[in-house]
Amino acid sequence: MPRLWNETVEAHRREVGGAILDATAELVAEQGLRAVTMSQIAEKAGIGRATLYKYFPDVEAILFAWHERQVSEHLQHLAKIGHGAGSPGQRLKAVLEEFAQISQQRHGTELAALLHRGEHVADAQQHLNHFIQHLLAEGVRTGEFRDDVAPGELANFCLHSLTAAARLPSKAATRRLVAVTMAGLRPD
Amino acid sequence: MPRLWNETVEAHRREVGGAILDATAELVAEQGLRAVTMSQIAEKAGIGRATLYKYFPDVEAILFAWHERQVSEHLQHLAKIGHGAGSPGQRLKAVLEEFAQISQQRHGTELAALLHRGEHVADAQQHLNHFIQHLLAEGVRTGEFRDDVAPGELANFCLHSLTAAARLPSKAATRRLVAVTMAGLRPD
Repeated sequence: MPRLWNETVEAHRREVGGAILDATAELVAEQGLRAVTMSQIAEKAGIGRATLYKYFPDVEAILFAWHERQVSEHLQHLAKIGHGAGSPGQRLKAVLEEFAQISQQRHGTELAALLHRGEHVADAQQHLNHFIQHLLAEGVRTGEFRDDVAPGELANFCLHSLTAAARLPSKAATRRLVAVTMAGLRPD
Repeated sequence: MPRLWNETVEAHRREVGGAILDATAELVAEQGLRAVTMSQIAEKAGIGRATLYKYFPDVEAILFAWHERQVSEHLQHLAKIGHGAGSPGQRLKAVLEEFAQISQQRHGTELAALLHRGEHVADAQQHLNHFIQHLLAEGVRTGEFRDDVAPGELANFCLHSLTAAARLPSKAATRRLVAVTMAGLRPD
């Protein structure tokens, strides 16, 4: 087959795959994650059930793929914030606030716990950990952060402290959590 | 039956129950939690297998009872430290350091995750959370801790931040984690 044909097929697959994830995300937002069925997803995505089964074996597999896309979008968004304007401390604060808000939304549920057992989450956490370490190291050089604890340990502290966000009731509470966490990073 | 007889039976039951948990704890320390069998436990506790089965249906049930006892001992130990000498800040630091050391020992494993799904752990966490809240409230009054965030939120922050201890490689690292956490609690 000519290369162009392969690329067209590949582009079509990506498009349908994306439509399936979009449909699932919409259904999830409407009726909660557990209620969604393969038939509903196929209908919403505008494809037959047989086609849907060529892409994914069951709802759980779609949910994992959907979550993988969510996590990847979150990471890109956090990276953009982290590479923005301001001192390392200002940028880290913005990253942690955004991360805390993300953690607060629809987390702390049984299904979130299931999805978070996926390998993609461990990878994303490691990625975020490294990214935060870099910001911390930058801030140590500018004197914004303490230098008596290694950036790796500080990043670990931040990410564990922010797991508290999953059960917080409001945006204001997540901002306070970030403020307390940031205070732990300051030099004496 | 006379009351004395009931009490004697009850005391005997407690003694045998304690011996079973002691035997299990020793075997666990020697060969790891997963390798322990009912026969080994009965032999080590000096009772027959049939008797052992009158107390516990399987190894998992003993492990849960054993863990419940561990958790309860840890809580008592932490309460003793928290009620000791020193300012609220000094006592909280001592409590958090001890808690971080406990979390570091043999935690972060698959079996620890299983045992921690037990209700007794949620109860203990809530108990510890309240205890830490009280120390924080005391420290707010003495000016050692910040008063712009409620003690309940600060306690939540502490306990989540210290979950990082489970995977730390050394006592020194857990002490640094506590130092960073305590720094988050200081007034501006």
